Amino acid sequence: MPTPYDPGAYRPPALAGGASGPSHLRPLIDTVLGALAQGAAARGGPIPHGGPQAVAARLRALAAPVLPTGGTGAQEALHTLVRAVTEGSADPADPYCVAHLHCPPLALAVAADLAVSALNPSMDSWDQAPAASTLEAETTAALAALVYPDLPQPDCLVTTGGSESNQLGLLLARERARAAGSPGVHIVCGANAHHSIHRAAWLLGLPEPRTLPTPDGTLHPATVERALAELHGPALVIATAGTTDSGAIDPLPGIAEVTTAHGAELHIDASYGGPLLFSRRHRARLTGLQSATSVALDLHKLGWQPIAAGLLAVPDATALRPLAIRADYLNADDDTKAGLPDLLGRSLRTTRRADILKIAVTLRALGRDGLAQLVDDVCQQAQQLANLIEAHPGLTLYARPTITTVLFRPSHLTDSELATSRLALMTSGSAVLGRAHAADRLWLKATLLNPTIGPADFTALLDLVAHTGRETRTGRPPSNGQEPSTGQDPPGGNTPRTGQ
Amino acid sequence: MPTPYDPGAYRPPALAGGASGPSHLRPLIDTVLGALAQGAAARGGPIPHGGPQAVAARLRALAAPVLPTGGTGAQEALHTLVRAVTEGSADPADPYCVAHLHCPPLALAVAADLAVSALNPSMDSWDQAPAASTLEAETTAALAALVYPDLPQPDCLVTTGGSESNQLGLLLARERARAAGSPGVHIVCGANAHHSIHRAAWLLGLPEPRTLPTPDGTLHPATVERALAELHGPALVIATAGTTDSGAIDPLPGIAEVTTAHGAELHIDASYGGPLLFSRRHRARLTGLQSATSVALDLHKLGWQPIAAGLLAVPDATALRPLAIRADYLNADDDTKAGLPDLLGRSLRTTRRADILKIAVTLRALGRDGLAQLVDDVCQQAQQLANLIEAHPGLTLYARPTITTVLFRPSHLTDSELATSRLALMTSGSAVLGRAHAADRLWLKATLLNPTIGPADFTALLDLVAHTGRETRTGRPPSNGQEPSTGQDPPGGNTPRTGQ
Repeated sequence: MPTPYDPGAYRPPALAGGASGPSHLRPLIDTVLGALAQGAAARGGPIPHGGPQAVAARLRALAAPVLPTGGTGAQEALHTLVRAVTEGSADPADPYCVAHLHCPPLALAVAADLAVSALNPSMDSWDQAPAASTLEAETTAALAALVYPDLPQPDCLVTTGGSESNQLGLLLARERARAAGSPGVHIVCGANAHHSIHRAAWLLGLPEPRTLPTPDGTLHPATVERALAELHGPALVIATAGTTDSGAIDPLPGIAEVTTAHGAELHIDASYGGPLLFSRRHRARLTGLQSATSVALDLHKLGWQPIAAGLLAVPDATALRPLAIRADYLNADDDTKAGLPDLLGRSLRTTRRADILKIAVTLRALGRDGLAQLVDDVCQQAQQLANLIEAHPGLTLYARPTITTVLFRPSHLTDSELATSRLALMTSGSAVLGRAHAADRLWLKATLLNPTIGPADFTALLDLVAHTGRETRTGRPPSNGQEPSTGQDPPGGNTPRTGQ
Repeated sequence: MPTPYDPGAYRPPALAGGASGPSHLRPLIDTVLGALAQGAAARGGPIPHGGPQAVAARLRALAAPVLPTGGTGAQEALHTLVRAVTEGSADPADPYCVAHLHCPPLALAVAADLAVSALNPSMDSWDQAPAASTLEAETTAALAALVYPDLPQPDCLVTTGGSESNQLGLLLARERARAAGSPGVHIVCGANAHHSIHRAAWLLGLPEPRTLPTPDGTLHPATVERALAELHGPALVIATAGTTDSGAIDPLPGIAEVTTAHGAELHIDASYGGPLLFSRRHRARLTGLQSATSVALDLHKLGWQPIAAGLLAVPDATALRPLAIRADYLNADDDTKAGLPDLLGRSLRTTRRADILKIAVTLRALGRDGLAQLVDDVCQQAQQLANLIEAHPGLTLYARPTITTVLFRPSHLTDSELATSRLALMTSGSAVLGRAHAADRLWLKATLLNPTIGPADFTALLDLVAHTGRETRTGRPPSNGQEPSTGQDPPGGNTPRTGQ
């Protein structure tokens, strides 16, 4: 790129928009697809081997300098950085990458997301997102009706994820309390609630939530009732439909009943379990959801969307009024009177990406039945995995899975050995498993969100886990960031895998 | 899609990840690129014609039903919805779409963003984003060093935009005040500050900001000094480097001086102006930035990134400590001791998209000089546009532009006629201009962020504005959502345009 400013010679880099945008994008996207394929092949597994220090060193060497004086050009930069980040990625499409509520996105949703980046609608005023704002209104209305099927005008906001949805749920409750003359609202949650509940209370200047014991992993209505009986003033009870640790669903109808009886409100964090609503087979497990004053949902978990695809549903559009704000450059009175929809009250963000398009494409392409089938599949996988664990001589199952999370452990390991074994699997690049405490022990966690894998993958994964557990127990435990010194490849490294 | 559950016959839709992901993506992306091209050609201008009601009706007809029982398949859904949203988009790459701080993204940044959606790294734990978390650390360090070049360890968070950056700036100030024993912090801002400052104070449970008059559009140090002299307790002064209305930059060195003298802190909202730092020609206009305790930046404005690309820079990494939080499943003590970086304290979000990749690709591809040239280009365009307005017999310029925002108006129109005229331009699909109040009048606002357009576009746009202004004044004013009843096409509709 020439250094002296010379408008005659200089040609700015191509834009993604306009009629010629697609032709500018095509060769660049070819490079990206090539780099994705090369990086995945070079990785050859669920996560790069070597652990944090080694992976960071490789990335730094490839990516330096991150802000050169002169540029390397679009093709070089795309190839180098996309390939490096791909090789260094944890791939949730790999059958051995099952740690988190981190789903492998559908190709069709990712393709739709490309259009979002190219069109770049900004969802804070109509004249930055004319059609996208209508698509959002239509799609969120349909999703809100899934949660509140019997109400005339439920509504739903698009968020960055469950954490923001929870934050908005608490904020709306705080504002209702203030409007009723209280300085704030008591937050009452179980020990099983997501940390974002506590973080939201802190952010909003509310007192620390009253956190109730959940010894079996769920919040009992009787526990909630005792807590509410001791409180004075407005209270918001938090129930969870799908905990992060075990996928447990709190008894929603019972909690709704005691909450109503005490004049309190109910926010349900269904960030994980919400998409059970698509399934005829499983939706009854969310009975009680429609009693909530707000519901957090998240389609980048059990909804196969690329991040971000969070939602907050409310029983009536008027519940969102506290978010209203006026900014003359975006929603001046005369513009709103002229029929321009006021979008600022749909988020605390101003500029906002049109995450709705990938969601809308997925709903249309798969339909409710197609999404139900995916949900049913991964729920059934979890039962299959639990069966295999129960039948495995070296493994112990914590409990039958509720949604798609399976807690288990190699028998006879201490908690510390279990943690070491999990790190060894990750550091060697063999498998990515989560961790959770339950019943005073540490467990390995498999969160199943990949509809393309099957029993053969599970058998190989379990053998690998059992083997690594034995090595951890008998061999020298692997130290920080080093490969485990087993002197041999872990089994399963060359096992054919059905995942994509 | 078959309704009865039959694992033998059923094939789940393809995933974007894994070694075969790119081959699944390719045909879907072909469809998206085709739909983008068709939609842009069908629109044929900066924004769809007909106004909100007509555009919404067209979209609804094409998109219904948004949640069918059975799906239409990936290809149909992608083609239909991407084409409909494209035809119904406001395209910031069009030379007549200049309303907002809504940039036309670079094709190379959009291509990089595709990799983000496909890989789907989640930036809340290392085992969901091994390489992406390192790339983020390296890239944010380089950006932080642009803001604070003389400090040993500045840091920078990635946000969803200027609004979240401002919110975090206020939150960190609140927490510093609390740590020092105060219940909160006084927020002191100018009337020119972005509405997100007021919204953040409300969110955080802080008192309404003390809002100081800015009669000429900037906040004067003497005004700040008088306000600080009257306050007791910790105070955070907000200065703006690039207002939304006019691109004005507050006198940062003077404000920094009085703020320091009164023991107050300074947050600078440089969401718009921040990228002037890339430019040798313009960076001196941000002198004083390095005095701030936090700085909001935003590369989806003057940085040609698709949404979202917000940043918050702080002078030292320790300033971010109030965001630290522990969640056993994401950053357990023994994992952190084993060398896994703790990512939860880098955001209030939990799951978080790897927006850094497109930024890193852009920095590498263009280099600092390449970005400087884009910044210099659009700043020069603004001066050219101002020259043309000054020379135009039917138009009045508000003032010489500071960054790339130009306020002007057809001479002899009332404010109401001006608003009507702006709506007529938009409703007819001819041009998208912003609006701003200044010096007790309403002005049209052109925010120039497109490096591919030039003087010929500006001449045609100004003639169109002047013509529509005359029609508004003499003809029947267009009513809500209807095309202006001028009985003829607006001029410029068939003018060749250089933009992409």
